[in-house]
Amino acid sequence: MTNTHAIVIDKVKESKIAKTDFDNLTFGKTFTDHMLECTWRDGEWQSVEIKPYGPIEVEPSCKVFHYGQAIFEGMKAFKDATGDVFLFRPEDNWQRFNASAKRLAMPEVPEEIFMEGLKKLVALDKDWVRYGEGLSLYLRPFMISSENGVAAAPSTEYKFMIIMSPAFAYYKGDVRVIIASEFSRAADGGVGYAKAAGNYAASFYPNNLAIQEGYQQVIWTDAASHEYLEEAGTMNIFVRIGDSLFTAPHNDRILNGVTRRSVIQMAKDHGIHVEERRISVNEIREAAKDGSLKEIFGSGTAAVIVPIKGFKHKDFKYELPQLDDSYASRLKEALKDIQYNRAEDKHGWRVKI
Amino acid sequence: MTNTHAIVIDKVKESKIAKTDFDNLTFGKTFTDHMLECTWRDGEWQSVEIKPYGPIEVEPSCKVFHYGQAIFEGMKAFKDATGDVFLFRPEDNWQRFNASAKRLAMPEVPEEIFMEGLKKLVALDKDWVRYGEGLSLYLRPFMISSENGVAAAPSTEYKFMIIMSPAFAYYKGDVRVIIASEFSRAADGGVGYAKAAGNYAASFYPNNLAIQEGYQQVIWTDAASHEYLEEAGTMNIFVRIGDSLFTAPHNDRILNGVTRRSVIQMAKDHGIHVEERRISVNEIREAAKDGSLKEIFGSGTAAVIVPIKGFKHKDFKYELPQLDDSYASRLKEALKDIQYNRAEDKHGWRVKI
Ligand SMILES: Cc1ncc(COP(=O)(O)O)c(C=O)c1O
Ligand SMILES: Cc1ncc(COP(=O)(O)O)c(C=O)c1O
Repeated sequence: MTNTHAIVIDKVKESKIAKTDFDNLTFGKTFTDHMLECTWRDGEWQSVEIKPYGPIEVEPSCKVFHYGQAIFEGMKAFKDATGDVFLFRPEDNWQRFNASAKRLAMPEVPEEIFMEGLKKLVALDKDWVRYGEGLSLYLRPFMISSENGVAAAPSTEYKFMIIMSPAFAYYKGDVRVIIASEFSRAADGGVGYAKAAGNYAASFYPNNLAIQEGYQQVIWTDAASHEYLEEAGTMNIFVRIGDSLFTAPHNDRILNGVTRRSVIQMAKDHGIHVEERRISVNEIREAAKDGSLKEIFGSGTAAVIVPIKGFKHKDFKYELPQLDDSYASRLKEALKDIQYNRAEDKHGWRVKI
Repeated sequence: MTNTHAIVIDKVKESKIAKTDFDNLTFGKTFTDHMLECTWRDGEWQSVEIKPYGPIEVEPSCKVFHYGQAIFEGMKAFKDATGDVFLFRPEDNWQRFNASAKRLAMPEVPEEIFMEGLKKLVALDKDWVRYGEGLSLYLRPFMISSENGVAAAPSTEYKFMIIMSPAFAYYKGDVRVIIASEFSRAADGGVGYAKAAGNYAASFYPNNLAIQEGYQQVIWTDAASHEYLEEAGTMNIFVRIGDSLFTAPHNDRILNGVTRRSVIQMAKDHGIHVEERRISVNEIREAAKDGSLKEIFGSGTAAVIVPIKGFKHKDFKYELPQLDDSYASRLKEALKDIQYNRAEDKHGWRVKI
């Protein structure tokens, strides 16, 4: 770490942790004592500040409100039985963050700010990482354009921040999905592969329509033909046909999930045949009809691995069978064992704080 | 206007107007004395406040920073020689604002808040609307999600605001464009037709690449085939081949510009043959080669009407001819005559404050 990026730490006088009810958390609503903030101005990153979590002041003309230059990452810190804290593949998130930054015409964040800042911040609020099944600290690095002015052009100033929220496993209850046949999330040549704020806003309305029909999520299909599966709102999608596992190849339109990548590797480690290739909706419907469609599941940092119980595509509805030894549950256990330091870390995914 | 939406006005103690250098304005950097703010909470719009322009306080977890629910409008107020102030087709902007709101899963803003609020605000800061060629007051209604929390779901709270900035005509200097053959701005089933913040962020990187090559803007083509013209970053596009004027039909992907609609009507009024239909890049290249391509121009509130001097598409470069009596200049004059109350308002486009 260079001198220019020295981290200045201003600690809270009194921690909020004693007042926090860890048994009744709403996902993403409670934040730890500290946050990180670093401003990009005059073409360079200024000093990194770790300080009490709290509001920031912005002008109504702040460009992020008007032109949406905003990107983020979602990561987790886990505690093991001995109290050690680990990040999971944080380099992958840092690299993806910078890929998002580039596509949104924002400055890249150097490793020593992103990674050293993150580690210092997590270390400082270590007590907020709880040990226990499904518990973690959700980490949210993000960047917004912060110049004031309503001319439609990239900002000359940006804020990189990290905030952290204690979390349990994200999804409760069954998940059934609608496979999109009309709305789309991303196109070739667009920003679908980036964790850009606008991608999420664009998905809420179609997702609300799905909820009104009694489904929880949308699985997106390609905008051009709506014939191929892409991903869900915050999860990549895996389909098991017979004993083979398939997931869409990553491209311009699909977020290349860290969990997705880990699932592919773990499946291989478990001797499961796994392929990255296009999966047509038609193929899934045919496999459903002839009984070879065994599982569909989503993978993502917040949700971990979530079995899909049923889907609807146009007029076609299908309930997935209940399996005793599903790939989803096998891979989920294997993933958690690595994350909570209960299993050997063959691929070097854990990073100890 | 109902009682629930009573407008509360808190005036500035001292106006900034005397300290404002109207001869040296940067577009969108200077704001008038007052702004409007109205919060949507518990399922309804709260009271409308007009108050001194100034910063707002938001938490770093404010949803707009993470999931990009943010929409806006761009409108102008004009002053005539007698000092009267006019809006131009404001109902169109209000309706488009609500179409954007719906697609982004945000609450619609009732007419009495948007329109009455806007009129009161402009009336209060009337002195900021200057009389003179190309001068106007740029009006920026916008809405952002303001709930705190990092769960990826629509917000439960929103802020509707209006800020205003004194403006001159937007583009200075020649405009040459690259016709997109790789990047895309919007897809069928997406949010291209909405004035969603994320659409602009998505366009900055490809636009920067164009700037690096010595061009000022990108003209987008359809994401599926890149064969048909769509629109520019903040302008709709008109092409004149022979004596006919063409513009892309509006659809899911293209913002249906108020200026575009006005240009089409004025062209008809002037006896110009005008058609809304798909225009292929190939057609333009062929017309360029055989000399029938006479003009390309952009239309938008900020830019008014801007002739395109030249374009590049893949390896093909073309400089448009310099015409004495171009449609662009004829229609621009006609539009300004209506906006500045120098001509009869046949279609009822002016709304006097
Ligand atoms: C659109 C989208 N797809 C997939 C994922 C899964 O990615 P990861 O496994 O890196 O969390 C996410 C987010 O977390 C996402 O937002
Ligand atoms: C993407 C886009 N297209 C076209 C326009 C032109 O629309 P209008 O004439 O209503 O200003 C704008 C904005 O003003 C725009 O942002």
